[in-house]
Amino acid sequence: MSKGLDHETLNENVKKVQYAVRGELYLRASELQKEGKKIIFTNVGNPHALGQKPLTFPRQVVALCQAPFLLDDPNVGLVFPADAIARAKHYLSLTSGGLGAYSDSRGLPGVRKEVAEFIERRDGYPSDPELIFLTDGASKGVMQILNSIIRGSSDGILVPVPQYPLYSAAISLYGGSLVPYYLEETANWGLDIKNLRQSVVQARSNGITPRAMVIINPGNPTGQCLSEANLKELLQFCYQENVVLMADEVYQQNIYQDERPFLSARKVLLDMGLPMSKEVQLVSFHTVSKGYWGECGQRGGYFEMTNIPPQTVDEIYKVASISLSPNVPGQIFLGLMVNPPKPGDISYLKFVQEGKSVLESLRRRAHIMTNGFNSCRNVVCNFTEGAMYSFPQIRLPPRAIEAAKKLGKVPDVFYCLKLLEATGISTVPGSGFGQKEG
Amino acid sequence: MSKGLDHETLNENVKKVQYAVRGELYLRASELQKEGKKIIFTNVGNPHALGQKPLTFPRQVVALCQAPFLLDDPNVGLVFPADAIARAKHYLSLTSGGLGAYSDSRGLPGVRKEVAEFIERRDGYPSDPELIFLTDGASKGVMQILNSIIRGSSDGILVPVPQYPLYSAAISLYGGSLVPYYLEETANWGLDIKNLRQSVVQARSNGITPRAMVIINPGNPTGQCLSEANLKELLQFCYQENVVLMADEVYQQNIYQDERPFLSARKVLLDMGLPMSKEVQLVSFHTVSKGYWGECGQRGGYFEMTNIPPQTVDEIYKVASISLSPNVPGQIFLGLMVNPPKPGDISYLKFVQEGKSVLESLRRRAHIMTNGFNSCRNVVCNFTEGAMYSFPQIRLPPRAIEAAKKLGKVPDVFYCLKLLEATGISTVPGSGFGQKEG
Repeated sequence: MSKGLDHETLNENVKKVQYAVRGELYLRASELQKEGKKIIFTNVGNPHALGQKPLTFPRQVVALCQAPFLLDDPNVGLVFPADAIARAKHYLSLTSGGLGAYSDSRGLPGVRKEVAEFIERRDGYPSDPELIFLTDGASKGVMQILNSIIRGSSDGILVPVPQYPLYSAAISLYGGSLVPYYLEETANWGLDIKNLRQSVVQARSNGITPRAMVIINPGNPTGQCLSEANLKELLQFCYQENVVLMADEVYQQNIYQDERPFLSARKVLLDMGLPMSKEVQLVSFHTVSKGYWGECGQRGGYFEMTNIPPQTVDEIYKVASISLSPNVPGQIFLGLMVNPPKPGDISYLKFVQEGKSVLESLRRRAHIMTNGFNSCRNVVCNFTEGAMYSFPQIRLPPRAIEAAKKLGKVPDVFYCLKLLEATGISTVPGSGFGQKEG
Repeated sequence: MSKGLDHETLNENVKKVQYAVRGELYLRASELQKEGKKIIFTNVGNPHALGQKPLTFPRQVVALCQAPFLLDDPNVGLVFPADAIARAKHYLSLTSGGLGAYSDSRGLPGVRKEVAEFIERRDGYPSDPELIFLTDGASKGVMQILNSIIRGSSDGILVPVPQYPLYSAAISLYGGSLVPYYLEETANWGLDIKNLRQSVVQARSNGITPRAMVIINPGNPTGQCLSEANLKELLQFCYQENVVLMADEVYQQNIYQDERPFLSARKVLLDMGLPMSKEVQLVSFHTVSKGYWGECGQRGGYFEMTNIPPQTVDEIYKVASISLSPNVPGQIFLGLMVNPPKPGDISYLKFVQEGKSVLESLRRRAHIMTNGFNSCRNVVCNFTEGAMYSFPQIRLPPRAIEAAKKLGKVPDVFYCLKLLEATGISTVPGSGFGQKEG
């Protein structure tokens, strides 16, 4: 008789999950690394693993919060600046027992207030801390919201393709249906509403009702910034179709051009006024893992809910309670991100300088990467306007495609494996993001 | 038309979840606290929130890992001992870019190796780091395993009653069926195999197949330590019934008597020899949140898999990958817990002293609590042998039960609410743990 954790008896949804960012390529790269080969992991946005240094001030504050006994040490001023000490005291005062105590399952109320103030400064509209939940990185929040929405395979989630595989993986896990809408590579990965409506019509004809729509802005893995006009169109679409908008805005600090600044879906929605501003259900996600912070390993994030009924907010709170609380140090990082040092603070200049240098380096590399790709034969790539990724199109010669087929591999997987073996560069094949064939 | 996050259209499993530890009592207590009343939260094991101080050495190490620039500071020796500095360098060398980089989704290989060595020392049998996954607290691991096992409502999970509500809540969330087995209050919360078999028979007659069984040892909320004989019986049961054993052993350091030391399910299983030692599927959970650490807010935990097929391990790895990696500081805490200072280390004596003083205080309080309860009229309580909880039985007068019914409340909820209003002590009613009526 089979047992509960035998492979053939596992939850089918678990088995269906595909996760390309840590798929075949990543596993092969890890093997090669174990064998002693030098691997450059570009498969996931993990800047500290590629040498980016952490910002000093937030690390000082969190180190002091971890070691509160230092606050009474007469020598503390020799190794920590006074504003970091003051900030550590501030954050400790927001906890009920320091970093070792569970917080409320939604996160520390004081940090949620800082997030609300940040959102208000950014968008020009007040934000309610009670509608902001802190999470162990943005992914956990995305998963919780999808788990709340999806009831079964006839619930569809509109997801941009190419997409970040978190979405396809989580939708499989919760037994929903992914409804793809294609971003237009020839229109700089813009979102074509006509195309989106076609996706909905096709889903409906298959018995699938779209209940939520994901946008990733700036784009992952495609690097585009959505224009205000484009955001308005898609909010209108969500309004007409009664679809929840899930706005993955984790790259909002990663902008590498000046023509198209980041605009939050929330600001555009509230700018559109009644009735839409009170009707469209919106959940927005942000994190400390990206931007010039890159604090991936700390797992700090939040989501903010707009126009979500209070009863639903209560349910989401209840489910968050099952795992008690997000990690508290990650919450402090988030507080520091939304409330950084101010002009006049001792650490202000250094902090600004460090952040600027990270962003300039990312911007420089965005240019180097896309220029480099476009200078190659049979390779084209849109400019990386934001986020941390370039998504080139590489035309493979027919013989490479044949060779891949012989091995039973998708051609781009075959190419990426060869690239890995030859250069140690670990990438993600476009097919892993669901990109159209070819 | 209804929208994706309207309450009536939410995933029914989400709505069904009940979570007493943060239920009506907790919400009322939070309200009272907001109104300025002093509340003592005893509803959840959160020792730092009740004044327990963190252990100094691990905090020093993690603070240094957060602030690696201090390692080059000539003044660092004035505020940190040399062994903490050495340990911080050790853990940083196990990461690929410090605490700000994602680790492997299973956790840092170097820390998993330390966990395996700890398990080997504890049980006398080697442990494989590849079968150990680090998690954001033990709850997240429990949820992942349940999500892998449960396919639908005909899959049953045997759960001890009274139980920790994590289990009932997670089983609801994933759409499975909780199959209760009652712990014997009159036999010091022992596990009666006959009773367990009856639960299985009854479940089967309702079309439910038990696929896994949860034990909490030492018990939460009941505080008992399972004897070797009892553990053998239940392992035999799992073997015969092809049921996965989920051993929640997060209180293994919290033992307040000498007659019945903690024995891991894994040690007892391997002691039993073939064929069982190669057949029974076992997943064991541990955490930094309990013991004399109490580092709840850091969210560090692990699970170890025994006799789980490699293909299943791969699936669990894949699903863990969706949220990229557990928080890295929590992983370092876990490493420190399983590999604490050794005799001769500069910090050894202080560390041992701090840990002992926490455990002695917990032991003292276990006696005070249970003696106190048993000295009250109409209250009886088993001695708290381990964990952090006492579970008294309180006989309410008929008029109190009537008054409760008038308000539409379960009598013990009514009592706990009155206790809260009168004293500020926030507790969890026994019915929240699923205890039998009365």
